[in-house]
Amino acid sequence: MSTQEDLYPSRDIEKPQVIKRQDPVLYNNKPDQGPISETLLRQYERDGYLLLPELFSQAEVNEFLAELERMQQDHELLATEAAVTEPSSNALRSVFQIHRNNLRFSQVAADPRIADIARFILDDNVYIHQSRLNFKPGFNGREFYWHSDFETWHSEDGMPRMRALSASILLTDNTEFNGALMVMPGSQREFIGCVGKTPDDYYRDSLKAQTIGTPDMASLAGFQRRYGLRSTAAKAGTVLLFDCNLMHGSNSNISASPRSNLFFVYNAVSNRVVAPFNGNKPRPEFLATRETFAPLISPEPHRKAG
Amino acid sequence: MSTQEDLYPSRDIEKPQVIKRQDPVLYNNKPDQGPISETLLRQYERDGYLLLPELFSQAEVNEFLAELERMQQDHELLATEAAVTEPSSNALRSVFQIHRNNLRFSQVAADPRIADIARFILDDNVYIHQSRLNFKPGFNGREFYWHSDFETWHSEDGMPRMRALSASILLTDNTEFNGALMVMPGSQREFIGCVGKTPDDYYRDSLKAQTIGTPDMASLAGFQRRYGLRSTAAKAGTVLLFDCNLMHGSNSNISASPRSNLFFVYNAVSNRVVAPFNGNKPRPEFLATRETFAPLISPEPHRKAG
Repeated sequence: MSTQEDLYPSRDIEKPQVIKRQDPVLYNNKPDQGPISETLLRQYERDGYLLLPELFSQAEVNEFLAELERMQQDHELLATEAAVTEPSSNALRSVFQIHRNNLRFSQVAADPRIADIARFILDDNVYIHQSRLNFKPGFNGREFYWHSDFETWHSEDGMPRMRALSASILLTDNTEFNGALMVMPGSQREFIGCVGKTPDDYYRDSLKAQTIGTPDMASLAGFQRRYGLRSTAAKAGTVLLFDCNLMHGSNSNISASPRSNLFFVYNAVSNRVVAPFNGNKPRPEFLATRETFAPLISPEPHRKAG
Repeated sequence: MSTQEDLYPSRDIEKPQVIKRQDPVLYNNKPDQGPISETLLRQYERDGYLLLPELFSQAEVNEFLAELERMQQDHELLATEAAVTEPSSNALRSVFQIHRNNLRFSQVAADPRIADIARFILDDNVYIHQSRLNFKPGFNGREFYWHSDFETWHSEDGMPRMRALSASILLTDNTEFNGALMVMPGSQREFIGCVGKTPDDYYRDSLKAQTIGTPDMASLAGFQRRYGLRSTAAKAGTVLLFDCNLMHGSNSNISASPRSNLFFVYNAVSNRVVAPFNGNKPRPEFLATRETFAPLISPEPHRKAG
């Protein structure tokens, strides 16, 4: 177990508990000097998420989709643990660590259109804690139950504080029909400690369907009353930024339209992971970076003329 | 197997086939003389469904919900086959035959606000082929895969022609978050014959998760391209009328809000069921009425003054 103080106890607790967030959401205290408007930054701070419509062009999205297609045919890649398939079929569900095993996606991770915002919000240099390509197929895409990513990253990976955020780049239109992410806006301000000792190597099961580290129904019902539900349905190319502790989930997808996205987790370098707070051995490198916390280096953004 | 000609072959076929509907959708040829406007009737004919917003008052809905609550506690009822529970838990999912085992719901079935429209659209006297109360709980409400009800009623119950419709009375707000029914508007004009011999007593499995009599992915993808998807999200008290051959389904429900509705299937008396077209013995009475096809008798509607 980590020797660092555990501000967000979970897993090894007697009963579920809701505690206040001990960390800022927006770390930078000069929000009028950011890469996006202060209005948007304040919206992120309040809601815990932000949609940046069609930040990537359709041409870029097509290029990413072509890359996805190549990866689905890459039998060497599919044989690794970084490739996760649906429980009931063998359909590809996620490929992890794409910022290291794919040149193009490593560039996307460092793209200043996203990385600059992450650095600004977290007010620090950042590194990629986790990355993945999610593919929710049509007809039988399974649901993802409600969760805070931070609960898992803290308990299983040893992320000390809430100083991380995710960027999801939509590769397909996300609609109310194909399992667009649902969020509880504002829920990043409270943390639900979850009951249940984590089994060893639990990630092998949890990647298919998580049951440990999921919030209890009473706390969730309270969250839904207090914060409500919102859909993040948006067009392909849109980037969804969301705080590491935002409560989110998605329903199944029986429509014919797959739902795919790229997913990068930016963690502040000062918040690099320590020993997992659940006392287990850490999850493997493809799920949580530990080998190097070197700051992500982005090329200079193309400044608008004038 | 029925001796009647099978206009809609399914189950015992070599490969999936899409055929044209052989029957009208709107049977009555005087749509300007109906209990609802001609515009609404034409809309039903075109789309295969119609939403009648808040046809039942909140007071009536509350009364129905109280009845639902009573039924959830009725251990005698829960022990019968008419009560169906979720596969993974024991949560109540549906109670069938509510038009016979519950006095209040038998009155709802005959309520002229619905029954008059059913009689008019089908241009015949009607009886209740099936009725049920659906309860999709919060947090773990499962999905219903795409299907045409008629495919099952024809193959497994022996309903000869497409001359039936369903009325769903929403008892809770149906939203994009809690698994509102999705429909493919216009899809009632084509029938997808499905491959797969029906096992004996298949209803015991199919009520939990149907795999036989479900359309193939290629036909469904074609349907989605041709007809698109539409949500039927609406307020409690709303009635959704839909044709027996409309393609519909619903995603899972991880929200805290349950989704409940009453469901009555009106079949034209002239279209009463014969021997099942799949050659099996018929499903039990609680799933498909065979004991009596006596026309439903409704009280005179309260006509508006003036």
